[in-house]
Amino acid sequence: MDTQTSTEPAGLAAAPAEDDAPWLTAREQRLWRAHLEVSKLLEYQLSRELGQHDLAINDYEILVVLSESPERRMRMTDLAAATLQSKSRLSHQITRMESAGLVLRQECPGDRRGLYAHLTEHGWELLRKVAPDHVRSVRAHFVDRLDEAQLDAMYEALAPIAEHLRGLRGKL
Amino acid sequence: MDTQTSTEPAGLAAAPAEDDAPWLTAREQRLWRAHLEVSKLLEYQLSRELGQHDLAINDYEILVVLSESPERRMRMTDLAAATLQSKSRLSHQITRMESAGLVLRQECPGDRRGLYAHLTEHGWELLRKVAPDHVRSVRAHFVDRLDEAQLDAMYEALAPIAEHLRGLRGKL
Repeated sequence: MDTQTSTEPAGLAAAPAEDDAPWLTAREQRLWRAHLEVSKLLEYQLSRELGQHDLAINDYEILVVLSESPERRMRMTDLAAATLQSKSRLSHQITRMESAGLVLRQECPGDRRGLYAHLTEHGWELLRKVAPDHVRSVRAHFVDRLDEAQLDAMYEALAPIAEHLRGLRGKL
Repeated sequence: MDTQTSTEPAGLAAAPAEDDAPWLTAREQRLWRAHLEVSKLLEYQLSRELGQHDLAINDYEILVVLSESPERRMRMTDLAAATLQSKSRLSHQITRMESAGLVLRQECPGDRRGLYAHLTEHGWELLRKVAPDHVRSVRAHFVDRLDEAQLDAMYEALAPIAEHLRGLRGKL
């Protein structure tokens, strides 16, 4: 690791140096900032473009997750875990989506482990209608801006990090 | 662009193919999924670790942004733009942070363009106390998992995307 160009985290330039502080180097810091910026701005831009279909990005995510599940349904607890939300926050979201006719909440006969969210036919049709535009957005703002070598290099870098982070879920 | 392995977006495998649909190739799709997963899980993990200091990740961001501003203050409208929030949502957040003594809202004498948020001494001290742990988290879950070639390659890939997305702000 290059420590010669070690810098304080931004905003702490005026703070006294701490000997054991693990400050990022300049090269690390510029990548970290770029990652944060792309994550945030890309979600913002994709949200705005989905908004043209009157669909929130979190709702789009729910439609995708349910569409990929067997019988296009998922237990509410599993759906909360899959979308990294608290059960109460998901419950509010599903209530909204139920009013819009996109999903349906139902108990599963013979399964006492609680409620399922089902994708409705209307939810499925909306997803099919919106998905091509959403994919165009993902291309325009991310995928088509990378050459093939970058596509693969980024995947090789990110995949082990994703695996590490998945392993931490539920632990602290 | 490799189109031979073109795949439908996940969840639409059962949908009829559309000739002009811009579906992602398998290589593009695995990167896109890895990016989404890392963005989301990393924010989740960093939030949990900041939570050990009783600090929300959005509040940490405000502390950092203010600490980097001249005189450690920023006009509320500029702060909303910098953190990609609506003014009303930022206003709620600043009210909470004001109660915790981390920031102070004040009119600027002679400036009629509205309120400023100031970082308080307590906010600054909290940032100094929390920052080393936060940087350790960023290292453990992201930066230290990349070698030097990956650090630079990812930066080269992400920096132009960040610039593109910044250019879109305020437009649709």
